[in-house]
Amino acid sequence: MVIVMKPKATQADIDKVVKRVEGAGLKTHLSTGEECTIIGVIGDKKKIASLEMNMMEGVEKTLHITEKYKLVSRSFKAEDTVIDVDGIKIGGKHFAVMAGPCAVENMEQLTEAAHAVKIAGAQFLRGGAFKPRTSPYDFQGLKEEGLKLLRQAADKEDLKVVTEVLNHDDIELIEKYADILQVGARNMHNFELLKALGHAHKPVMLKRGLSATLTEWLNAAEYIMSGGNEQVIFCERGIRTYETYTRNTLDLSAVAAIKELSHLPIIVDPSHGTGRRSLVAPMAKAAVAAGADGLIIEVHPHPEVALSDGDQSLTPQAFNELMSSLKHFTKFMDKEL
Amino acid sequence: MVIVMKPKATQADIDKVVKRVEGAGLKTHLSTGEECTIIGVIGDKKKIASLEMNMMEGVEKTLHITEKYKLVSRSFKAEDTVIDVDGIKIGGKHFAVMAGPCAVENMEQLTEAAHAVKIAGAQFLRGGAFKPRTSPYDFQGLKEEGLKLLRQAADKEDLKVVTEVLNHDDIELIEKYADILQVGARNMHNFELLKALGHAHKPVMLKRGLSATLTEWLNAAEYIMSGGNEQVIFCERGIRTYETYTRNTLDLSAVAAIKELSHLPIIVDPSHGTGRRSLVAPMAKAAVAAGADGLIIEVHPHPEVALSDGDQSLTPQAFNELMSSLKHFTKFMDKEL
Amino acid sequence: MVIVMKPKATQADIDKVVKRVEGAGLKTHLSTGEECTIIGVIGDKKKIASLEMNMMEGVEKTLHITEKYKLVSRSFKAEDTVIDVDGIKIGGKHFAVMAGPCAVENMEQLTEAAHAVKIAGAQFLRGGAFKPRTSPYDFQGLKEEGLKLLRQAADKEDLKVVTEVLNHDDIELIEKYADILQVGARNMHNFELLKALGHAHKPVMLKRGLSATLTEWLNAAEYIMSGGNEQVIFCERGIRTYETYTRNTLDLSAVAAIKELSHLPIIVDPSHGTGRRSLVAPMAKAAVAAGADGLIIEVHPHPEVALSDGDQSLTPQAFNELMSSLKHFTKFMDKEL
Amino acid sequence: MVIVMKPKATQADIDKVVKRVEGAGLKTHLSTGEECTIIGVIGDKKKIASLEMNMMEGVEKTLHITEKYKLVSRSFKAEDTVIDVDGIKIGGKHFAVMAGPCAVENMEQLTEAAHAVKIAGAQFLRGGAFKPRTSPYDFQGLKEEGLKLLRQAADKEDLKVVTEVLNHDDIELIEKYADILQVGARNMHNFELLKALGHAHKPVMLKRGLSATLTEWLNAAEYIMSGGNEQVIFCERGIRTYETYTRNTLDLSAVAAIKELSHLPIIVDPSHGTGRRSLVAPMAKAAVAAGADGLIIEVHPHPEVALSDGDQSLTPQAFNELMSSLKHFTKFMDKEL
Repeated sequence: MVIVMKPKATQADIDKVVKRVEGAGLKTHLSTGEECTIIGVIGDKKKIASLEMNMMEGVEKTLHITEKYKLVSRSFKAEDTVIDVDGIKIGGKHFAVMAGPCAVENMEQLTEAAHAVKIAGAQFLRGGAFKPRTSPYDFQGLKEEGLKLLRQAADKEDLKVVTEVLNHDDIELIEKYADILQVGARNMHNFELLKALGHAHKPVMLKRGLSATLTEWLNAAEYIMSGGNEQVIFCERGIRTYETYTRNTLDLSAVAAIKELSHLPIIVDPSHGTGRRSLVAPMAKAAVAAGADGLIIEVHPHPEVALSDGDQSLTPQAFNELMSSLKHFTKFMDKEL
Repeated sequence: MVIVMKPKATQADIDKVVKRVEGAGLKTHLSTGEECTIIGVIGDKKKIASLEMNMMEGVEKTLHITEKYKLVSRSFKAEDTVIDVDGIKIGGKHFAVMAGPCAVENMEQLTEAAHAVKIAGAQFLRGGAFKPRTSPYDFQGLKEEGLKLLRQAADKEDLKVVTEVLNHDDIELIEKYADILQVGARNMHNFELLKALGHAHKPVMLKRGLSATLTEWLNAAEYIMSGGNEQVIFCERGIRTYETYTRNTLDLSAVAAIKELSHLPIIVDPSHGTGRRSLVAPMAKAAVAAGADGLIIEVHPHPEVALSDGDQSLTPQAFNELMSSLKHFTKFMDKEL
Repeated sequence: MVIVMKPKATQADIDKVVKRVEGAGLKTHLSTGEECTIIGVIGDKKKIASLEMNMMEGVEKTLHITEKYKLVSRSFKAEDTVIDVDGIKIGGKHFAVMAGPCAVENMEQLTEAAHAVKIAGAQFLRGGAFKPRTSPYDFQGLKEEGLKLLRQAADKEDLKVVTEVLNHDDIELIEKYADILQVGARNMHNFELLKALGHAHKPVMLKRGLSATLTEWLNAAEYIMSGGNEQVIFCERGIRTYETYTRNTLDLSAVAAIKELSHLPIIVDPSHGTGRRSLVAPMAKAAVAAGADGLIIEVHPHPEVALSDGDQSLTPQAFNELMSSLKHFTKFMDKEL
Repeated sequence: MVIVMKPKATQADIDKVVKRVEGAGLKTHLSTGEECTIIGVIGDKKKIASLEMNMMEGVEKTLHITEKYKLVSRSFKAEDTVIDVDGIKIGGKHFAVMAGPCAVENMEQLTEAAHAVKIAGAQFLRGGAFKPRTSPYDFQGLKEEGLKLLRQAADKEDLKVVTEVLNHDDIELIEKYADILQVGARNMHNFELLKALGHAHKPVMLKRGLSATLTEWLNAAEYIMSGGNEQVIFCERGIRTYETYTRNTLDLSAVAAIKELSHLPIIVDPSHGTGRRSLVAPMAKAAVAAGADGLIIEVHPHPEVALSDGDQSLTPQAFNELMSSLKHFTKFMDKEL
């Protein structure tokens, strides 16, 4: 930490700050400039983290030098983490595609979707059984019935299942049916859920919050990893900005940034990231080129009758075409799809 | 709902859209312009809400005319709702001030804080026993021990207690000690928590999400009200923008906007809204002038040693001065403090 | 400036950085922590500003301690600047109200507007003769003809004139008719215009850019002041966020923040700041309570036929009511209106 | 346009609205729903654009159906526009790369840069002679001297020149030296400059404003095209968000969106878009995959001594490597580089 003193800070102010820092078992280094004095604080990271200096007389501001997350960071573990989902790998050279409808609606829809997804070459079936909806009057999902349908449809096509968990009470139930537990954007800051997932036995796909910084996102993953569950996959799904043409602003630079800050894999959701069917394919390709380890894409056999997010769902045919072209891109990026 | 057809939509496209809408038990009105045809959809609100038309051939876009929330809306209930917390009222002509430390630390801190808060004229003691923190390594709160201290300190000064609930499992516990249950900004989109609070027996103070729109916020309150708990208080606490001088951007126009859209009371948190002690007093006054029904302010007997958010906490003396000047402002706004 | 070295930086990296800094005529102070070394840079502010260190081997990041603006800053001049517009003062204890239509349309409109504005107690007539419009097909203003009408209408009621300048070529012309030159939000980053206004002979009202930080805004004022024109008035008019209910998000904390960072006066534009007639009065009151030195408000004798921004214009009657209540607020804030 | 009446609007309110619309020479279509009446307005686009209805009694809101820009739109011209810069083409199947230093510093720097840029395969030399800087005390560029150096260095390597114009007075001068005139992000809303460029004889590269919507950006291009200059190239350079790890948030979905909304070419600036050297290459590749028609990249022979933006400049070697891999990507996207 660096403490910047005000230009008008007195020697007494400086002495008090130094005394307080040293009293906490830390060391100081003073640099006296023309404009102001700055005080470097050296020592144990946790002790530094708990110092609150801004209220002291003469202090202008404090600057934190190092981040608080550790287990998720690339400096803690240099090599890429590869998540192994019962034989299907994500991360490193392994590219994974998850596809399926936004919400699980019925067996017919899921069977069709799973078949389309499998034929096109995806490894995971996605679908929401518990749906977080802005309005209490919107369709909230089929719950356990939906999980059963998902599992059944996936098994028939030899696919893995990824589905969202909204509530720590449901983790045990969902683990019975799903291979990857998804944390949605609205729950990225739900620390109670994150803590509970630290004790889960399945990998967690952690979506970025609606307006979460990279640091907050990395710390959210740290919550899960520090609980003991080291299988975390990031998912960039767009952030909230002033632009209204797209549903969100897909931040592909986050893919490259997370790759330098963390060893964990990161995938991209171009469906929620854009909210427009016509933009899904170009953004899926761009995500591969940016270095993503996978994609999660909404595919609905009949998007025009979907119960949610029909606007951004691909038809099976469009998804199939996209997958063909993705195979070239992933090869070029030295990834296996 | 209004469906805007593409300029190149064919008559067949239009016919199909009309057929689909009417098949759902709704009526249509066509307006054929020079550029395009627009189709008005008339009928039951819920049926309209579940129509997904954007994927149909020839459809340019759909525009929703009416919001989905109902119970919270001013058009549903014209007069101001007044929340009665065991004799202390919030809303209408009643102005409420909640104050206290960010986190409950120990009995001494709380006793001092409660006394200062009471003397200055506040009616509620605030303090976090369960703390949502960005990093898993930050102080997470004293839990039930903190609740007990809060209640004890408040009772001694005849204050009410407001404290945050992070987790639906804790509602019953917290209701034993608190008078108002706070939903923090990070949980505004935690629909499972909102649903559970719909069955709680205490009023809920619902903070605005980090980047929540007014519509999303109103819908979050609708989740609670539609569960049966009609005692909801909004709390504006700043939204996330690109500006870094302040911790958040306090959106005081939200106060006046919520007042026209809803009958529920709204209070303002200038401490989190600005993150800077020096800005708390001017924003508190501005909140009153904007029409707020109350304030929640961080006060710490010794902000320079606070375990969290010391930078934005007022000293007891500064809080006392603020309260004196607020009394004039509230009187001028025709509110009782 | 503080240079933070990477944890893995070698002694040779550190030596090179130190050598480069000292080679530029500056001094260094090293603090060697457990995680990394930080290097304080001390000396001439301008020399420091021109150092680019981030590309050097081993450098993690650099942190700037002090801002570049000087003439506008409160630390350069402690007492409030009061702008004297031919006898009408803005700043310090002097509260100014500017009102009138968005665009100058014709003599009849302006005469009515000026009369209403004067009766209600404002000191300035506002109105756009040169209009910056998003679309080239929108009404672009009456140009010099509009300026003449403005001057005439204002003189008749003994009001001062404030109007926008879009282009440095027009400064001389506009100075002939106007008392204050307005820089619109879209031109806050138009440095060529700012430089030219540094040589103008009339005070400049500088609106905040659509998404300008406080630092950028202060620097924009520094452009004008460093050119020799010391009469600058800030105008907060809302920033662009994701919220769509309001046209912009009015950032009233900027008022209090600018007051601590600068000695220059700041006024508020609640009309553009909210874009909704119903929100103008509450935000005007809140602006006074936040410490603003004035207001600029759109008033149109017949808003329902306005050529631009009718939605946010007050009627003369509504403006008159607002002014009555503002008089109490300003008195309470120890300002003269 | 669609006018939505309030639920409580009276028949008289509706009649007045209809009368006003029809009085303006337009037609109406009424749809009377359970909640409210909506009025479709049909007729001449320009007449509709100038209607201001929101202030009328009983009007809830108005919704605009069609955009105001025309010449730039894909519906006006279906095929891709290809800009021909003296033999070098941009758009359609032609991919263009512009590279060079942020600011022109001296002949040595430029000669080295131009050589590196040419060898790697770029067609344009970029470099700023007129620099828009946040602080008046920052380096403002070499002006005409810089233009001469640019032209000389480019000619030696047979490259075209792209450089920024800040001021309409400078257009004629810059046209003497440059092949493409750049409008920077801070000037996208400088309508006076845009109008002047409508009469320029060289193509214009129009950067997206710091927080400009796609609609505003398209309208800015419409300003240039409606003045007679049809050679406009869009440049996505990132938008301002709350994220601070990157300098801006590069919005690659804008590339695909502009492609569907307009026939004009669009290129991407990953240097300003990220502000971090390490993210330039991944974002450059992603831009190609998203469908961009070109790239503009900062390359400096010695980034560690650059006078501006050294942090985001590539070394000649890094640029060379990037260009090699881009050749594969462009080929795969069916573009010629």
